[in-house]
Amino acid sequence: MSSPIDNRPVILTGDRTTGPLHLGHYVGSLRNRVALQHSHRQFLLLADTQALTDNAHDPDRIRRNVLEVAFDYLAVGIDPAATTICVQSALPALAELTLLYLNFVTVGRLERNPTIKTEIQLRGFERDIPVGFLCYPVAQAADITAFKATLVPVGEDQAPLIEQTNEIVRRLNRQVGRDVLPEAEAMIPMVGRLPGIDGKAKMSKSQGNAIPLSASPDDIRQAVRGMFTDPDHLRAVDPGKVEGNVVFTYLDAFAEDKDFVEELKARYRKGGLGDMVVKRQLENILQALLAPIRERRKRFAGDPGYVLDMLRQGTLRAKERTEATFAELRAALGLFTFT
Amino acid sequence: MSSPIDNRPVILTGDRTTGPLHLGHYVGSLRNRVALQHSHRQFLLLADTQALTDNAHDPDRIRRNVLEVAFDYLAVGIDPAATTICVQSALPALAELTLLYLNFVTVGRLERNPTIKTEIQLRGFERDIPVGFLCYPVAQAADITAFKATLVPVGEDQAPLIEQTNEIVRRLNRQVGRDVLPEAEAMIPMVGRLPGIDGKAKMSKSQGNAIPLSASPDDIRQAVRGMFTDPDHLRAVDPGKVEGNVVFTYLDAFAEDKDFVEELKARYRKGGLGDMVVKRQLENILQALLAPIRERRKRFAGDPGYVLDMLRQGTLRAKERTEATFAELRAALGLFTFT
Repeated sequence: MSSPIDNRPVILTGDRTTGPLHLGHYVGSLRNRVALQHSHRQFLLLADTQALTDNAHDPDRIRRNVLEVAFDYLAVGIDPAATTICVQSALPALAELTLLYLNFVTVGRLERNPTIKTEIQLRGFERDIPVGFLCYPVAQAADITAFKATLVPVGEDQAPLIEQTNEIVRRLNRQVGRDVLPEAEAMIPMVGRLPGIDGKAKMSKSQGNAIPLSASPDDIRQAVRGMFTDPDHLRAVDPGKVEGNVVFTYLDAFAEDKDFVEELKARYRKGGLGDMVVKRQLENILQALLAPIRERRKRFAGDPGYVLDMLRQGTLRAKERTEATFAELRAALGLFTFT
Repeated sequence: MSSPIDNRPVILTGDRTTGPLHLGHYVGSLRNRVALQHSHRQFLLLADTQALTDNAHDPDRIRRNVLEVAFDYLAVGIDPAATTICVQSALPALAELTLLYLNFVTVGRLERNPTIKTEIQLRGFERDIPVGFLCYPVAQAADITAFKATLVPVGEDQAPLIEQTNEIVRRLNRQVGRDVLPEAEAMIPMVGRLPGIDGKAKMSKSQGNAIPLSASPDDIRQAVRGMFTDPDHLRAVDPGKVEGNVVFTYLDAFAEDKDFVEELKARYRKGGLGDMVVKRQLENILQALLAPIRERRKRFAGDPGYVLDMLRQGTLRAKERTEATFAELRAALGLFTFT
């Protein structure tokens, strides 16, 4: 698939397969991936192994969602001829690299990782942290370096994960005396995180405040109708607040006509514009955005054989690439290899 | 190689490939492996991945010793047609199982492991413990279960490692609702640890108090001559102490004629038996033991192509067995697998 003189920057990204994707994913990453898939060499990891690090009690959920997330990718326009979509757990070199890297990182270093610290608190793990969870920054370093990715899209709070990766890269390059692995750079998205329809900071399926990509026209209508606006904006004639008003946040994220949005904002602030009118505008935009995605998703979900075959081919390409990196690194370190 | 109705107990054992083996290994394990290799189904792991957990700075040493240890195995009479000899780092399923198991074990549990606690102290790691080192009991659980081993020869101080393995086995079997993995049992050796020639508790190459299996006749002679005896036994006519006297400990371990050893001990205790006479007896026994081992070792070391081929075949058999276990476990847990 790839030409030998492919000099495009290499992106590695993906999603934990814990549930189908929603509008938050669309705004934060999926949209970008579609935009970058030709100018960049892009690998998309269905991260089922990583999803297990805090879902070991429910592997069935992780398995089911491998296909669900793949449907979402194809539905939004990820082109498997341009982007390699692959399944993490079917790439043994990622596990092998993880085990190797674990020897170059101390327990203290992992415990000081700010992202891990926060996430351990969020999950209430305290001393009952599964070792796999503590180790996931190292597994992530294995993923990134196995693909020799130079660009990794991450949220702002995840930049320490790239720092951990580059520490390992520098440590290994120093030991072998040459740059066998490239350093990676974090790609922080332009657009901030999309709030939930209830106004909470994060859209999340488990919070029940998400609009999934597969939402029906009715789901979309109800979600927009129930959306959090300005709680003090009781009558249409009164002035309303735009800041923290989810409907306007979504208009900013999804409306193509920015001038029209600014006009709506001005009228809303002044008074005389009812929530229902603004919501109808947003609903139209979301219905238009999601209708073709939903249709394509339905088509792919109706042909899992095609999707599995696409995944098999992508995973095979990814296997080749990741095993080549592992072999190169083993040789550079002087480890035993059958020839 | 294996018949489908092979009901022999399965042994997994092996050695970290940090250096060639010595008489301590012979007494503690090699001798047993030769004795058990027909009545048991035996897998011998050249544990290069595990050796890296505290030797990541010197992978070259680990690589070189993969072959050195293989030479030792063949030299003492391990029969590759009966025992499967394989290279740990060439078995990706071991890394994959390790990563999976790490999700079922907490950081606190690993830090409480008495064997790990002691070894962390011995190595002076404190908070700079490489994560790989902390995780090695889990990697060992992966090794044992991947081979579905039911018997694991370990030193008395290593019994907690088997306990950790069985905790993981029970946890997984409970989750899948049937005994997909067998529990393992520790095989504690009858014979205690062989002291170094200087009288220190442990024979070890790095302490310079070991007799390697490849020792020349002259090496053996000098090692026995310099052996620690009874420091107060200055003249042959004086009574001497047998306890803590390395020459007698070795006679107990290596002489076949136990009555003769008891007679020597009695004479030594009474007085009138010089160190040199007893040492000559021991030297004769060790020369007779090591001569054929050294000869065979030289033959195998002169034909690394043959040994590599033997390793390749053993590793292939081991790959099949360990990947079958991983696939079975994935299916039982309901994880994603291409079919």
